[in-house]
Amino acid sequence: MTRSRLLRPDPKLDLVLERVVDVPRELVWDAWTKPEHIKVWFTPRPWRTTECEIDLRPGGIFRTVMRGPAGEEFNNLGCYLEVVPQERLVWTDTLLPGWRPAASTGSQSCGLSGFTAVVALETLGQGTRYIATAMHRDEAGRRQHEEMGFYDGWGKALDQLVAHVKTMR
Amino acid sequence: MTRSRLLRPDPKLDLVLERVVDVPRELVWDAWTKPEHIKVWFTPRPWRTTECEIDLRPGGIFRTVMRGPAGEEFNNLGCYLEVVPQERLVWTDTLLPGWRPAASTGSQSCGLSGFTAVVALETLGQGTRYIATAMHRDEAGRRQHEEMGFYDGWGKALDQLVAHVKTMR
Repeated sequence: MTRSRLLRPDPKLDLVLERVVDVPRELVWDAWTKPEHIKVWFTPRPWRTTECEIDLRPGGIFRTVMRGPAGEEFNNLGCYLEVVPQERLVWTDTLLPGWRPAASTGSQSCGLSGFTAVVALETLGQGTRYIATAMHRDEAGRRQHEEMGFYDGWGKALDQLVAHVKTMR
Repeated sequence: MTRSRLLRPDPKLDLVLERVVDVPRELVWDAWTKPEHIKVWFTPRPWRTTECEIDLRPGGIFRTVMRGPAGEEFNNLGCYLEVVPQERLVWTDTLLPGWRPAASTGSQSCGLSGFTAVVALETLGQGTRYIATAMHRDEAGRRQHEEMGFYDGWGKALDQLVAHVKTMR
């Protein structure tokens, strides 16, 4: 676990959602890493995730298309940076698949300035400690993401994930 | 070797220096991954590499300080993305150690707009096929890097690497 030293959050720059959920981490991992699951829970309703592409390895693609109730569409394209099965998933939208730097306009999700995300999972009894972190390049990036509703959005999505996982068993 | 599919160069966006050198790839790998070697060969003379810090794992730091003959100083800070010993080294200055997106000003090397670099090594008889690739976010980034002297700079540095490696045996 020496690697997690690399990922200590910085309160000035990062947003962290931590919660204990009553589903096993193996299923939370599956929900995060398989397109058929992502499409069900990933986007807070009434938004929907209409497309999802995953190549689950460092440098591999993580792409989603989100569609809003009025027909809005956001394309999110990024790549995985670290994949530790059932334990930690790291990805960013500041690099394209194959680690190419993303163009500074266009590909960053929902108009945000780009971030790196970490989902870390730990078994806790029958459930899972779930820690999602968004790391930004500067304080403005963190603030913008917070004002766009990071806690509400990631929280609602997690509710949907848990509800979905309960149908998987 | 499926992973190398991720790294197919795009001639519009990438710069590639490929050469066969008459030193074994184990030593080329050491020259690229140990600070005491980097300090000797990394910067085309009369520039010098006065500091080097390496944490050789994905997300780990790769930092150098280059000093010019008139006292100019460039700080380069980035992180490794993939480390396949003696075969392939991938890093970027668009992410800081721990994969945090780099601030858009300041940390990018020598005023460049940020790139991902790949050094790939193959054994060829007693020598090594050496392929260095710089991947940019757009054509302007590639052009800027080329005009700054990518081929000359990386070529001279490789000459210095080979000369240094020959003293290591």
